[in-house]
This record gives sequence, structure tokens and C-alpha cells, in this order.
Amino acid sequence: VVVDIRAAALAKIAAKTKPIGSLGRIEDLAVQLCVLQNTLNPAAEPARVLVFAADHGLAAAGVSLYPASVTAQMMQNFAAGGAAINVLARGIGASLEAIDVGVASDLQHISGIVHAKVARGSGNIALGAAMSQTELAQALEVGRAACKRARAAQVNVLILGEMGIGNTSSSAALLCALLAKPAHEIVGAGTGVSGEQLAHKTALVQQAVDRLPQPASTLEILRELGGFEIAALVGAILQAHAENICVLVDGFIVSAAACVALRLLAESGAQTPARHLVFAHQSAERGHAAALAAMQARPLLELDLRLGEGSGAALAYPLVRSAAAIMCDMASFESAGVDQAQ
Amino acid sequence: VVVDIRAAALAKIAAKTKPIGSLGRIEDLAVQLCVLQNTLNPAAEPARVLVFAADHGLAAAGVSLYPASVTAQMMQNFAAGGAAINVLARGIGASLEAIDVGVASDLQHISGIVHAKVARGSGNIALGAAMSQTELAQALEVGRAACKRARAAQVNVLILGEMGIGNTSSSAALLCALLAKPAHEIVGAGTGVSGEQLAHKTALVQQAVDRLPQPASTLEILRELGGFEIAALVGAILQAHAENICVLVDGFIVSAAACVALRLLAESGAQTPARHLVFAHQSAERGHAAALAAMQARPLLELDLRLGEGSGAALAYPLVRSAAAIMCDMASFESAGVDQAQ
Repeated sequence: VVVDIRAAALAKIAAKTKPIGSLGRIEDLAVQLCVLQNTLNPAAEPARVLVFAADHGLAAAGVSLYPASVTAQMMQNFAAGGAAINVLARGIGASLEAIDVGVASDLQHISGIVHAKVARGSGNIALGAAMSQTELAQALEVGRAACKRARAAQVNVLILGEMGIGNTSSSAALLCALLAKPAHEIVGAGTGVSGEQLAHKTALVQQAVDRLPQPASTLEILRELGGFEIAALVGAILQAHAENICVLVDGFIVSAAACVALRLLAESGAQTPARHLVFAHQSAERGHAAALAAMQARPLLELDLRLGEGSGAALAYPLVRSAAAIMCDMASFESAGVDQAQ
Repeated sequence: VVVDIRAAALAKIAAKTKPIGSLGRIEDLAVQLCVLQNTLNPAAEPARVLVFAADHGLAAAGVSLYPASVTAQMMQNFAAGGAAINVLARGIGASLEAIDVGVASDLQHISGIVHAKVARGSGNIALGAAMSQTELAQALEVGRAACKRARAAQVNVLILGEMGIGNTSSSAALLCALLAKPAHEIVGAGTGVSGEQLAHKTALVQQAVDRLPQPASTLEILRELGGFEIAALVGAILQAHAENICVLVDGFIVSAAACVALRLLAESGAQTPARHLVFAHQSAERGHAAALAAMQARPLLELDLRLGEGSGAALAYPLVRSAAAIMCDMASFESAGVDQAQ
């Protein structure tokens, strides 16, 4: 017997004690989880936050308000539990892995983070490739491995985040190349740059995109313009697709990684490449709307966030958990003895 | 020493390890809580859901897809823990009171709800006043008393909801009168009416508004057009203002009650009548946008919800809890040893 899980999920939620469709997008989320997990009783717990961190050669060119040293310092902050994503992860009961994929300095002395450094920072993308083919493969595997660890821990929802001074520039370059857009339409404030510094950042991103060999494959675009944390995010999204694990996509940088991953999945013949993705929020970063539009994504929240770390995804997670609970625990008209619509 | 708590809260959040302002509206929420509670370490726990329920004489005229019997049946559902708001309240760790303010049938046999019935349903507002002055005073007091019980239980956030077949009609009539709008701009689908039934509902609401004596005081408008659960919501919002308890305003009906309460507070000379209100979501109900605009309210969520019961407010609550946690628990640049912007 072939069961159409989507039809069954729609029927189950229609029988709940509420006007049809009155929980709006929460119902859509519930059905998405049912289809993804092939069950009428989906689970959204436990959740795990993965924060992939790396440095960027371009940061030395002054594309951020913050010095590149902040990437390493924030890894210490993640390990100590003091960053925004630590606070938010504790609030939702999610475990957290902060993963060094390519921070420029040695972090071996920090316990409580995952040491998976591919190299000490990626190359300056305005001048040359971000990484070698070997490094790209390693960074993708760091992401896949993190997803596999989560699966082994029965994680049902992955909350993806990142840390890396300079990574809005790298993400903007990736999106310009993938969406065929000029840099001035995609590059934004990042940590808060404006005026001449924003113009400088925009020019560097355009320079990086312009030096890209044509035609370039999706993986070549990632190798040339990405960062190690972005490549790891791509790997995690690909692996989560293979394992049907729900992924909460954070803001601008994770969305750039999702654009890469969805293109790779489509190229490999996946019928429903985005079936596992939930887009958490529309960030305040300029190019995010274009990235979401390209993926036909309608994010859950719009709260003027532009922090990264997975913070927006963590803020959206309770909506996913609520959707699962509604599907599993709410009474039906029949079970509760409530009259239906006339 | 006079401490400007708003300035101190803004300074505290600016020193957190993140780009200035990068948590967007979460930061606004955090500062609002600090000011409301007069502390730099605000608390959002515990939360309590108050679901005020009542029947409406107008329901007999066929303004809902559901029979009026559903109000009482849903009270049983709330008591049994099977409704959407029960599931959502459990998910956020909130206590819940379902309060019979004016359900048409006798509910004394139901344990696990609060029995505070003022009368068996309000009058048909198309034909006459919803309630007497005595009944209005009693219903307002039911709301105030619920708020006082919450305060006694150290509740820091009230999640306000309602149940009452016919109460989108009553709310629409209130908003038409308060905002001087025609019924066709405010009346919406409610539980899902359309076509001729929607036209019928609209005509009845206009008829109710047209028979209102002019000029009418805010309390007279509430007495003429409100329902018992709406009056109780007004009482709860007023009492929460007096006690500086944060209130999460749910959708269309609670927003109509908030419009009444804010007008009463302004008339009584309150300087910051909305200081305790957080608007949870923009619902799919037609008139909700006008109600929010009249209160200059920017809701947190927009998820196409139109259920009521406080469900949208419960879904938004984790954002308020996160805001408090960010303010209390996140590290500063100094404490974490992270370099500041250059």
C-alpha cells in the first residue's frame, strides 16, 4: 500500500479542533516535517546548533568594522557560553558545536570547540582562489561529518550558523556569481560598514567576481569565492538532505551556502532539493532578499537581524517545535467532541 | 540618584559581543522589558496564558461557520488539554487559565477552568446593547482579577487569548466605532465565512455600529458592542498596565480589546499607555492591520494565523523570553575579551 504522506498529514491537521487552515504557516511547517520524516507524528527535538567558523583573506583589506582577530576571540566566547547563540541555544534546549574549519590562529588551546581546521584562513578572493580543490573537499567533509554526528545523537533539527570576519563579502561574491547580479545589488553593511568603506567592500567583491573563470561550475564558484565555513555549511546542508534532517537556514551567509547546495542538488538530479530546509528569517543585510527570492523561500521571521552565528535560526526554532507539537498532540474534533463547521 | 533606565539598558546591550543593533527587534524588546520592570536584568518567566471565553447573541444570526455550542465544547477541550493553546502553552512552559466570563451554557461541571460567568452570553448587538453597566463592570473585574492572580503567582508575561463564537463580529463592531471605519473595511472571514455569509455578517456589524448613541464614551462603546470576554480582556490589560506586567497581545480580538484599553488609559491621563504591550502577530483577519495601525503597533510575527485562543501570542512568546535572556546572560566585549569595532 502506497501511503501519500502529504495527503495524510493534510487530513490529520484538518481534523484538529480549529478552523481549517487557521494556524497558517505553522500548518505548512507541520506538513513539511511529516513529509520529510515520513510520519504523521514528526519530531523537532532534539535540536543542535552548528556554528562553523573561519577567517577570510579579504578581511585584511578592511571589509569589516571588526579586526580579523575577532573570529578567534568569538570562538573562545562560544566555548565559554557567552555569545548570543549560546544564550539562545540554552533557551531552546539545543546542543551547540562551534567548529573551527579555518580560523587564522591556532585554537588548539580552546576546549569545548570542535577542531577541524582545514587551513589558517582562506585566500584573498579579490586576488585569487579562496582555497584549493583539496581544501574544498576537506571543508565540505567537515560539514558532512558534523551532520553525521548530529544524526548519531538523534538530532531532528539542525540550526546552522557561522562566524567569520569578512564572510558577508565572500557570501556576496558567491551570490553575485550564482545569481548573475552586480556587487552593488548584493553587498551590504555586514557588521555595519557604510560610506567609503562600503564602496570599498563593494569594489573588492566585484573584483573577485570579475576574475572568476567563465564558465565556472558550482563547485568551482564555491572554491574560488567561498570561505571554509561556507563550504562546511554547504556540506552540512547536502548531508542533511541525504539523511532527511530538517535544517533551519539562518541569515545571509547560510542562505548563500544554501544557494550553492540547492544548485548542487539540482545538478545531481534531486527532485526536491529544498524539502528539508526551513528559512528562518529575512535579515537586514542588503542581498538577503535576492538570495531568498532565488530560492523561492519565504522566511518565517523578519526582525531586522544581522548578527549571524545561527541566531535568527535559533529564534525561529520554537515555531518548528510548535508545528511538530500541534501535529502530534492536539485533539481532533472527534476526539474532543467538538461540533464541526455547519 | 536618578537612573535613566532606558539609557542604561541601551548601553548594556550595546556592550554585548555582537555588532551594535544586530539583534534588531530583539534588542528593542529587551529594552522595553528593562524599562517596564525597571531593571537591567529583566525576567520573562514564568508566563501565563489567560483564555477568556463568552458567547454572543449575534452568533444566532449566523455570523460564524460554527454553531455557538462550540464555545462551551472548546472550554471542555481547554480543560482536557487538547486545544491548540494547550499544546502551545505546554511547549513554552506557561500555565493556562481558561475563564468562563459569559458562556451561554452551564459549565459548572467542568473542572480545570475558572468559573466567573457574568451572564449566559451577551445580547445581540445588532438589536441592542451587549450588556448592562453592571455586567460590564463585572466582566472588567474578571479580567483584573485574573491579572492579580497572575501577579500573585509571580507571572512576568501574560499571554492573552479568547474563545467565543461570534467574537470577530463584536471586535469588528468595536473597531468600526473606535476608528470611525465602515464595516466592510474591518469585517473579515473570522472562522472562515465568505460570499453571502460574509456580506450578512458585514451588514449586521454595520447595523450594530449604526444604532450606537452619539456621542458614546469609550466604556459605552464597549458596553454596547463588546462581549464579556472582550471586556475581561480590557480589564486584564488595564490591570497589567497598573502592575507593569508585560502583555503579549494576540490577534484581532485581543487587539480590539487593546484598542479599547489604550483609549481608556489615554483618557485617564496615562503617559505611556502601551508601555507593557507587545504585539505578537499580524493575523490574516481583514481588520487586524487597521487595528494595529491605529495603535502604531508593529507585530513580531506574520504567519497567516487566524485561530485566536492566544495561539499567536504563545508562538511569539519565545522571542520575548530570548530578549530577556540576551539582556541578562550574554557576555560583553570587556567580559569576553573580544576586540571592539575599529
